[in-house]
Amino acid sequence: MVLPKQLENFPGWYNRVVLESGLAENASVRGCMIIKPYGYALWENIQQQLDRMIKLAGIDNAYFPLLIPESFLQKEAEHVKGFAPEVAVITQAGGKELDERYVIRPTSETVMYDTFSRWIESYRDLPLKINQWANVMRWEMRTRLFLRTSEFLWQEGHTVHETKEEAEAEMLRALSMYEEFARDYLAIAVVIGEKSFRERFAGADKTVAIEALMRDGKALQMGTSHNLGQNFAQSFGIKFLDRNNKEKYPWQTSWGVSTRLIGGIIMSHGDDKGLIIPPKVAPIQVVIVPIYKNDTDQKRVINFVNSHLLKKLDGIRAKLDERDNLTPGFKFNEWELKGVPLRIEIGSRDLEKNEAVVVNRLSLDKQSIKLQQLGNYIKDSLEKFHQDLLQRSESFTSANTYNVGSLAEIDKLIQAGKFGFYRAGWCGRDECEQEIQTTKYTIRVLPFSDNSKTKCVVCKKNGRAVIIAKAY
Amino acid sequence: MVLPKQLENFPGWYNRVVLESGLAENASVRGCMIIKPYGYALWENIQQQLDRMIKLAGIDNAYFPLLIPESFLQKEAEHVKGFAPEVAVITQAGGKELDERYVIRPTSETVMYDTFSRWIESYRDLPLKINQWANVMRWEMRTRLFLRTSEFLWQEGHTVHETKEEAEAEMLRALSMYEEFARDYLAIAVVIGEKSFRERFAGADKTVAIEALMRDGKALQMGTSHNLGQNFAQSFGIKFLDRNNKEKYPWQTSWGVSTRLIGGIIMSHGDDKGLIIPPKVAPIQVVIVPIYKNDTDQKRVINFVNSHLLKKLDGIRAKLDERDNLTPGFKFNEWELKGVPLRIEIGSRDLEKNEAVVVNRLSLDKQSIKLQQLGNYIKDSLEKFHQDLLQRSESFTSANTYNVGSLAEIDKLIQAGKFGFYRAGWCGRDECEQEIQTTKYTIRVLPFSDNSKTKCVVCKKNGRAVIIAKAY
Repeated sequence: MVLPKQLENFPGWYNRVVLESGLAENASVRGCMIIKPYGYALWENIQQQLDRMIKLAGIDNAYFPLLIPESFLQKEAEHVKGFAPEVAVITQAGGKELDERYVIRPTSETVMYDTFSRWIESYRDLPLKINQWANVMRWEMRTRLFLRTSEFLWQEGHTVHETKEEAEAEMLRALSMYEEFARDYLAIAVVIGEKSFRERFAGADKTVAIEALMRDGKALQMGTSHNLGQNFAQSFGIKFLDRNNKEKYPWQTSWGVSTRLIGGIIMSHGDDKGLIIPPKVAPIQVVIVPIYKNDTDQKRVINFVNSHLLKKLDGIRAKLDERDNLTPGFKFNEWELKGVPLRIEIGSRDLEKNEAVVVNRLSLDKQSIKLQQLGNYIKDSLEKFHQDLLQRSESFTSANTYNVGSLAEIDKLIQAGKFGFYRAGWCGRDECEQEIQTTKYTIRVLPFSDNSKTKCVVCKKNGRAVIIAKAY
Repeated sequence: MVLPKQLENFPGWYNRVVLESGLAENASVRGCMIIKPYGYALWENIQQQLDRMIKLAGIDNAYFPLLIPESFLQKEAEHVKGFAPEVAVITQAGGKELDERYVIRPTSETVMYDTFSRWIESYRDLPLKINQWANVMRWEMRTRLFLRTSEFLWQEGHTVHETKEEAEAEMLRALSMYEEFARDYLAIAVVIGEKSFRERFAGADKTVAIEALMRDGKALQMGTSHNLGQNFAQSFGIKFLDRNNKEKYPWQTSWGVSTRLIGGIIMSHGDDKGLIIPPKVAPIQVVIVPIYKNDTDQKRVINFVNSHLLKKLDGIRAKLDERDNLTPGFKFNEWELKGVPLRIEIGSRDLEKNEAVVVNRLSLDKQSIKLQQLGNYIKDSLEKFHQDLLQRSESFTSANTYNVGSLAEIDKLIQAGKFGFYRAGWCGRDECEQEIQTTKYTIRVLPFSDNSKTKCVVCKKNGRAVIIAKAY
């Protein structure tokens, strides 16, 4: 099995690596995917860590219906404009035409906020902070596994607050949580910042996002957080009696990340040999491949692994590859393709020398390690693996961020094959953003870390720094 | 807030207790429910334990599409008969009429097995063991929160085997897992056994189930496991090369439990004061209600709880109820309604005496416990609570199981208000089962624990023991 080279055919590489590594495949249903056990185990690890962070922030999980009355969607004018074109509609059920049409949730603002309007009476009911892990559906024309599928899995947080300031703070808290998660668990360097009007969530006053640079120089929006202002509160009649007994509309936020994060992992870290999965979320952190020449050998090595070696790896997600119909070489390739961070090779000769060989998927280093040091060595290596991977992601992002003063300069860079984040100025006016969009490149974010004054890349008037890139 | 009495109005009691305890409520979408944070936390605890048991059995989680092409559903003749009348149909998406109609999964046999036919080539790919946690939809006419809702959450296990015997063993393994889970985590006594032809899963050769007796004398089917034989393999063209290189159809099973389990908890354990949640899955195992007369008192007690008492409850899901706008009495009632197993009451006087009062939701016992013993006392009490609850469920089930020799006897018992499991004989013939069903009572199971020969309750011919009951 030979993968296409990333530099020659990145989309082809992506598709093949997803299929061959056993992460996912296309379903018989147009635009939908089957998340296979290896991909789902990765998603479960993502979920588990993120769920812990969400709960620590005092947010409760709940579950709202899959179906939304079409009339709900129409209550918020901007929201319906954004989502109506891509919903799937149920018109029949239980053998009858329905009186009321339902859509499958593309996101749950409307169905949740209709409920919140009954749950909230006074300031004592606020803040209300709810999260939901669920499947959602957006009927996409061009789909790609994990990146853009008609159905995907996600979490969506929804909070309601007494004041504008509290909502703004919660929007930023969620964004920081995503940034921290990307850095500390996925080893992905992200840029955080605000979205321009054109890239804002349908119905929000403000959208902030984490964006990361993929290895082909395109940007991936990995998570968003929205300050919804009082827009939905007004549309859905959410009101509360404040501390002075006056009726008011509350302020809301929503925020989410999805199975798209897996696409981000693949395209941030993968190489021509396949996936490289960050250890903190890897379904298998260490794979053990036994080496043997005959049955006696085989028995001895496998017994040793089961009775001694695996015990040294307590608390580590380790797997012994016992398949006896495949050569070690075949297995090495397969586990490299699947991106398992560390591989232990152990044979009879290693047993005699009381050691094992550890191979690092990122550096490809091979080390002979004494068995009594193996447990600590593996723990340290996994930690270092995470740091190295993050460092690589950070270096790649800075090395591929270019300062530009005009759209022509972006064009020149593209012609030279220099794809990446283009740091430019923008005056903030819609007509200049429209002009930028004609290049098929878009303003990804107004980065928080860089609000320097810069001339607009289009009109040359005073502006502020933005990141322009081609986006997934 | 006064609940209806169980003996006077069990359905009214059920509905009120679900709403008032904050487990769930009806959605604006017909037949669907909103699972509120307290209910969802209970579901998460159920999921976590069951997921651990499923993984220990070597079964991998995966995720398959929500939508199923209508043509898939029609491939297995019995299956379509069972499910077609209750599916929701998508006819439009992305602003267009669809060429192919999709249904929302009522269960995933068809969409999974279409895929399995491509995954499986030889005996080396078997057994294939997949589980999915997902939402499913069956358009129900009469719905009741948790017990029968159009959308519900569940897990569905699907396995494929080389031999009939392996499939039979897996079907029984899943059933045992459910029985163990009901006993060891939900503290519910269940009867296990086989279903009659009329109660079998649409498309299965054999269905086995766990059934429990609710406190109103009706039966709840809490989980099912099916031996699908080769029915679906034939319909979906799942074939494998066996060890002799011959092409064969494999043998399959499927099995599932759902949010219905929460209905089972409510109706097995609840009383006129509200819920009683089994400790192993309780979102809150111990609630602490501080008692104080003035602000100084309040501060002292709450400080003590936070700095000392909570530390003694390490590893226990404990919650301090700090709300200062409610009386202790109000809180006692609320936590009793919510079914929290143990309540700790602590005030200044208790602090001076170096003790706290522990109240048991099941026995209503009140005990003053020295603080240095509190941690162990709580741990022991939770364990004992589980045992007592299970014991109560077992006693209730045996006390309300009646031996009957004729349908007239069942009728007499019903007239006398003696609802429960009716142990009777059945000859195995469909016409006699039909006759039984005219009473609105049904054969729940042919229990494994009791295969004694008994005369048929209808025709008096030789038969074997069955459990007849009115079912949810």
